Amino acid sequence: MDFAPDERTREVTARARAFLDDHVLPAEPVLAAQVAATPDEWGARPVVHELRALARERGLWNLFLTGPHGGGLTTLQYAPVAELSGRSPRLAPVAMNCAAPDTGNMELLAHVGTPEQQRRWLAPLLRADIRSAFCMTEPDVASSDATTIRTRIRRDGADWVVSGRKWWSTGAMDPAAELLVVLGMTDPDAPRHRRHGMVLVPRDAPGVRVVRPLTVLGYDDRDHGGHAEVELDDVRVPADALLGGPGDGFAIAQARLGPGRVHHCMRALGMAERALDLVRDRANARVTSAGPLAERGVVREWVARARVDVEALRLLVLKTAWLMDTVGNRAAMTEIQAIKVAVPSAVQRILDRAIQVFGAAGLSADQPLAEMFAAARALRLADGPDEVHLAALGRAELRPRSTTDPHHPTAPREPR
Amino acid sequence: MDFAPDERTREVTARARAFLDDHVLPAEPVLAAQVAATPDEWGARPVVHELRALARERGLWNLFLTGPHGGGLTTLQYAPVAELSGRSPRLAPVAMNCAAPDTGNMELLAHVGTPEQQRRWLAPLLRADIRSAFCMTEPDVASSDATTIRTRIRRDGADWVVSGRKWWSTGAMDPAAELLVVLGMTDPDAPRHRRHGMVLVPRDAPGVRVVRPLTVLGYDDRDHGGHAEVELDDVRVPADALLGGPGDGFAIAQARLGPGRVHHCMRALGMAERALDLVRDRANARVTSAGPLAERGVVREWVARARVDVEALRLLVLKTAWLMDTVGNRAAMTEIQAIKVAVPSAVQRILDRAIQVFGAAGLSADQPLAEMFAAARALRLADGPDEVHLAALGRAELRPRSTTDPHHPTAPREPR
Amino acid sequence: MDFAPDERTREVTARARAFLDDHVLPAEPVLAAQVAATPDEWGARPVVHELRALARERGLWNLFLTGPHGGGLTTLQYAPVAELSGRSPRLAPVAMNCAAPDTGNMELLAHVGTPEQQRRWLAPLLRADIRSAFCMTEPDVASSDATTIRTRIRRDGADWVVSGRKWWSTGAMDPAAELLVVLGMTDPDAPRHRRHGMVLVPRDAPGVRVVRPLTVLGYDDRDHGGHAEVELDDVRVPADALLGGPGDGFAIAQARLGPGRVHHCMRALGMAERALDLVRDRANARVTSAGPLAERGVVREWVARARVDVEALRLLVLKTAWLMDTVGNRAAMTEIQAIKVAVPSAVQRILDRAIQVFGAAGLSADQPLAEMFAAARALRLADGPDEVHLAALGRAELRPRSTTDPHHPTAPREPR
Amino acid sequence: MDFAPDERTREVTARARAFLDDHVLPAEPVLAAQVAATPDEWGARPVVHELRALARERGLWNLFLTGPHGGGLTTLQYAPVAELSGRSPRLAPVAMNCAAPDTGNMELLAHVGTPEQQRRWLAPLLRADIRSAFCMTEPDVASSDATTIRTRIRRDGADWVVSGRKWWSTGAMDPAAELLVVLGMTDPDAPRHRRHGMVLVPRDAPGVRVVRPLTVLGYDDRDHGGHAEVELDDVRVPADALLGGPGDGFAIAQARLGPGRVHHCMRALGMAERALDLVRDRANARVTSAGPLAERGVVREWVARARVDVEALRLLVLKTAWLMDTVGNRAAMTEIQAIKVAVPSAVQRILDRAIQVFGAAGLSADQPLAEMFAAARALRLADGPDEVHLAALGRAELRPRSTTDPHHPTAPREPR
Repeated sequence: MDFAPDERTREVTARARAFLDDHVLPAEPVLAAQVAATPDEWGARPVVHELRALARERGLWNLFLTGPHGGGLTTLQYAPVAELSGRSPRLAPVAMNCAAPDTGNMELLAHVGTPEQQRRWLAPLLRADIRSAFCMTEPDVASSDATTIRTRIRRDGADWVVSGRKWWSTGAMDPAAELLVVLGMTDPDAPRHRRHGMVLVPRDAPGVRVVRPLTVLGYDDRDHGGHAEVELDDVRVPADALLGGPGDGFAIAQARLGPGRVHHCMRALGMAERALDLVRDRANARVTSAGPLAERGVVREWVARARVDVEALRLLVLKTAWLMDTVGNRAAMTEIQAIKVAVPSAVQRILDRAIQVFGAAGLSADQPLAEMFAAARALRLADGPDEVHLAALGRAELRPRSTTDPHHPTAPREPR
Repeated sequence: MDFAPDERTREVTARARAFLDDHVLPAEPVLAAQVAATPDEWGARPVVHELRALARERGLWNLFLTGPHGGGLTTLQYAPVAELSGRSPRLAPVAMNCAAPDTGNMELLAHVGTPEQQRRWLAPLLRADIRSAFCMTEPDVASSDATTIRTRIRRDGADWVVSGRKWWSTGAMDPAAELLVVLGMTDPDAPRHRRHGMVLVPRDAPGVRVVRPLTVLGYDDRDHGGHAEVELDDVRVPADALLGGPGDGFAIAQARLGPGRVHHCMRALGMAERALDLVRDRANARVTSAGPLAERGVVREWVARARVDVEALRLLVLKTAWLMDTVGNRAAMTEIQAIKVAVPSAVQRILDRAIQVFGAAGLSADQPLAEMFAAARALRLADGPDEVHLAALGRAELRPRSTTDPHHPTAPREPR
Repeated sequence: MDFAPDERTREVTARARAFLDDHVLPAEPVLAAQVAATPDEWGARPVVHELRALARERGLWNLFLTGPHGGGLTTLQYAPVAELSGRSPRLAPVAMNCAAPDTGNMELLAHVGTPEQQRRWLAPLLRADIRSAFCMTEPDVASSDATTIRTRIRRDGADWVVSGRKWWSTGAMDPAAELLVVLGMTDPDAPRHRRHGMVLVPRDAPGVRVVRPLTVLGYDDRDHGGHAEVELDDVRVPADALLGGPGDGFAIAQARLGPGRVHHCMRALGMAERALDLVRDRANARVTSAGPLAERGVVREWVARARVDVEALRLLVLKTAWLMDTVGNRAAMTEIQAIKVAVPSAVQRILDRAIQVFGAAGLSADQPLAEMFAAARALRLADGPDEVHLAALGRAELRPRSTTDPHHPTAPREPR
Repeated sequence: MDFAPDERTREVTARARAFLDDHVLPAEPVLAAQVAATPDEWGARPVVHELRALARERGLWNLFLTGPHGGGLTTLQYAPVAELSGRSPRLAPVAMNCAAPDTGNMELLAHVGTPEQQRRWLAPLLRADIRSAFCMTEPDVASSDATTIRTRIRRDGADWVVSGRKWWSTGAMDPAAELLVVLGMTDPDAPRHRRHGMVLVPRDAPGVRVVRPLTVLGYDDRDHGGHAEVELDDVRVPADALLGGPGDGFAIAQARLGPGRVHHCMRALGMAERALDLVRDRANARVTSAGPLAERGVVREWVARARVDVEALRLLVLKTAWLMDTVGNRAAMTEIQAIKVAVPSAVQRILDRAIQVFGAAGLSADQPLAEMFAAARALRLADGPDEVHLAALGRAELRPRSTTDPHHPTAPREPR
């Protein structure tokens, strides 16, 4: 359990911090202006392309991706970079090509894809020439249980034919999102966790229809490609469009979600730090008849509790990253679930109070707090609602004690 | 302390409920479609005008306004009607001409306006021929303390000349908002609570500039006229445009806020009831592998706590209304502050959990939960942040005990 | 829904308040000294007997008991008196012969007892010549469900023979508790809610053994008769010792619990008011280098939230009392459950913060806060844990909507 | 930031766990019986002496004490041992001679004491031949600020003369507590943090009077020596009874509190783990008509949240311990404050819910939950109330940002 930053981490973190301070934060109002000037477009605006060029120059590119295709960082090394990127969640991740859902899709392609699949889809994604969407959630089934997915992927001769309806396909409103990664049922008669497959669907395949955008609170996230409802009506793709084998879909989806959840948590901590920076400046600058807000006991207590929460949860995130690197994503599942339920709700609370410190301005677009609040709120549902993870954690913890089970919670929990 | 509904209340409530069920709720998707079809417009859409006609026919018009100009209801009688209207907060209040900020402006004009001011502005507002905005909050001062307002209202010959910058002027993006009610400083040298005046400014007066819309958690509320930043650059109005006397502004603003806060709380309870209705239907309809959501212990506990909170807070709101009717708004200030801090935060929590029951759909526009959540969140800042009211309540409660002070909290608090 | 205090209420409340201020509060240190001087005794100390005489003189006697035997108050009229008594929970209720569990036992005897049972047991209880215990809860079954009670009450010739083990029999350590009211199974084969009977067992009957006292946090409540574990080993009582009929036990127990829960809530509000009084004095008197505690923002906010909670919950308690008087205890069950879960937890939180204001002294016997805290904590379990009531409330609220069910939550909840 | 357990830690932790399971937990009912049999005694009972012998044999002795006099462990190495000892808080710490307040007093003597002071007091304390008390808090001053201490330590010839009143002198009711470590004012005219001295007072010195025991939520902790009010009436001690120099008292007290707070937090986590063990067994064993408690959603969620809190806070405690070892107690002050406010309140909440799972039994002495709850509650006040630490943390966090301040919170908080 050593998660001190090594030399590589310190060095890349320093570079990321400089990039953030010098280029990303100043670009925030530029992005806002560009979006306001092109209200009907979906996808990255010019400033994003400029930042990408700068990030690539600085070696701040694809850092999320462990292994040969990626930035060469471990999950633990990536953690502080991801956290920093969360301070400017609309710009920093996408500027460094580290934004969901592309990150998860690139991981899948890197780890499971065939050389041809990697050539066709991974290569342009790694260059940010295209973007991609992940089409899992469906309107009519509980998104918390991937085994209930109803979209069909039928074999028809040499092809797969995909039919179904997806929503919350983040990024899919962006025409640059040329790839849809679709989870569907390949064999309804197989055992429960072997019924599904994952298929790579070109966005321009006949039968694909992007029906409408969805909003999160009042945000459509159009600079990021939005969140789409997508109809797949007998969409025909060749046999080699399947990622992994016909029954591998559920396992692949699970594998994909683990790192994604951790990245979300890392960035969420960055949002909390950004909020604390903003609160600090505001609380010192805003002077009422009772003195500066920074001297109010209630504000001090909020800030203190926020600091404590952030410090404790960051350590838990780091431990999770370290476990993922050392024992694997699967063995780290309990910790992944733990941070998944603890971090977003804590960050939402921190942002809620930061907004309160700013007054109505905090709810507006003049500050990044409101949209970070919406993002944190959404994380309590994304990749499964908190309650599903809490129930799973609780069930595991309540398993009757047994001395023969090395993975049981009652096995020594003192540091390994 | 009798707040049982009398015959009049029962009758008007039944009518309001029928109107809500038969006309308002079915109109919600119509409004959404009309807004989507005219994305660049600010203000009421056709369906609102149709509902207004229906409401007027049914005698559900201006019910908020006590006294001769209004609907003839007391605050207590109005309470259940306002609560019902909160179940469809975008449509019901505006359909019944009971929507803020017009309600507060009409109250001011009815209680303080001269006959000429009433003829020119109150009459068309009561008919909903025009709308209005209330320009109090300023970007650079703590909005929680009206005595810090910097906008100047200078006397210049027979005119008043108004200069300053306002924001969060709700409704002012709507061209139909022909009247701006502006709070500004008339005499910087007067005692602190006598420095301000309130002036009636026609929206089309030279020097008035509606600068930009603001958003609340991503919502621009354009069907309601949005929330505007407004610049007043040497705007010249005649002497009789002043509402009340030159130093009356602060007192008038305070008087205006009381009923507004209570109306907000009543409607917020209606939002909570709407959320509970939606949760009930969803929790019974949504069946996972573990059975319907309605049988989950966590959902049951949320719903139970929501019911208890709503029941207790409704009684406190009714008591507040009853006090306003019997001892006046000023004497009811403690109770008004109490519900102002207790209701919106409770309703926000209820909505937060309702969203969780719905999953990501709860955050989208497919359900009214997300926008009600944003509205409840905003109420914790509107008309003064919770913390200001809490500090005032706490200060009053902590005044040293004295047997000679009949208003002290230690005076018998058992029911009067 | 009129719960304004009538003339009778005002008058008796004023008398109770004077009695509290003039006699009860000054007697608190006296009781403490008497208990310290007689550490091995269980039961009322001399000061209690003196206060009883004073209360009786002042007509503050048996006020809890509606109907001919009692004080002649309705539940609503009794509410403020009960609340006042909660300000000194060790002394005031017992001084006015309004202390649990005798109150519930007296109610049972008054409403269900035969004239002979009333002569033998009710009369001395009404005079406080004896005390009594209620033996329901058993160590081995979930106390939240009275149908699981295992104690047997067998018929044997002309007698009933009682065998079983009870605990949390409050008051039973006091030798003056001459009566044990025991719930047990009379017919295991009857329908679930008709299996039990309730029997009046003299404490000195052969086979009754008071095994040991239990503690609540660190309190043994010895001045109040403690909380006992009681063994009943073939205890023989005559046929007419049965209260009601052989299968009436469950219904009688339920009827008993309703008013008891309300009385607990009323007194708990009094504890909160006492805490607020103490906090007020302390926060003004305690001056640190940063000024008096009363000027700390955090303390102000605590106190403000406490005041709001108390005001809202008191109204809900009053409404519950009013419903009990007007539609009966059974029809008021939902409201009784609501206050049962809402009041004790709120009061515990208020007391927790009051202790924090006092520092370590707040945890000691130098202030009444710690023992009131323990009492509030215990109330979250007494008469069924909160979770059982929350689950029942949630289940009721989540019943599918139906227009034909007048008792459904979706039936108009606006004030009746 | 490496806090993985090293070989030494693993080994000693395994030994401590075996000692706990094999000897300490089984001794809990023995202690209860011995206390019940000798209700008037204050201090360790026979079973404690037996356990001490066993602990000493097993090398589980004085492990808290870093440096040459102690167990040879670092703070980080000691952490899991301390946590384990918290699972049986009445027995394990005292059995291993690792119980407050002796630990802090031994640390002072080891680090600041003269060889003679060490010979006279440290040696018997290290052998557990005597015990000791720490007399800092006073009834009349805010205990959160040691500079307000009023007890006087005057020089009179070759002696120091001590006069004042202390309370919450834990352990001082035990006649074996032969040493009182007393903080008092040596020079009222010195700068604020140089006014106090610390003096070693034999309990049997003329003028020392142990006035009375205090209780914590009903517990007198008599087996541990209780919590005493102590009067010092012109108590005369020789010049060499001063620990350090005349103005060193405040600094010594501060140094003493750091490790003590960390030890409290470590043990508190052990209390939480014990509670989770108990809840696990209970929730599986207790079956109601709705199935075992372990299958209730609400219980699962409680347990899940408890697990997440414990995991995150343990990491923060370990980081704090590691900082104390690497940069010193003073530099770790922020982290010490952070865990001081975060751990006890989290553990109190976990225990509160564990009690709820057990029903009324959880409040009684039949389970260790109630007394652990009282201990956790007391920790929120011991060594300074939470609010004082929160205010200090908030103030530090809100200091205006400056790039030149390496200790500022805005200095990189990503892992060092």
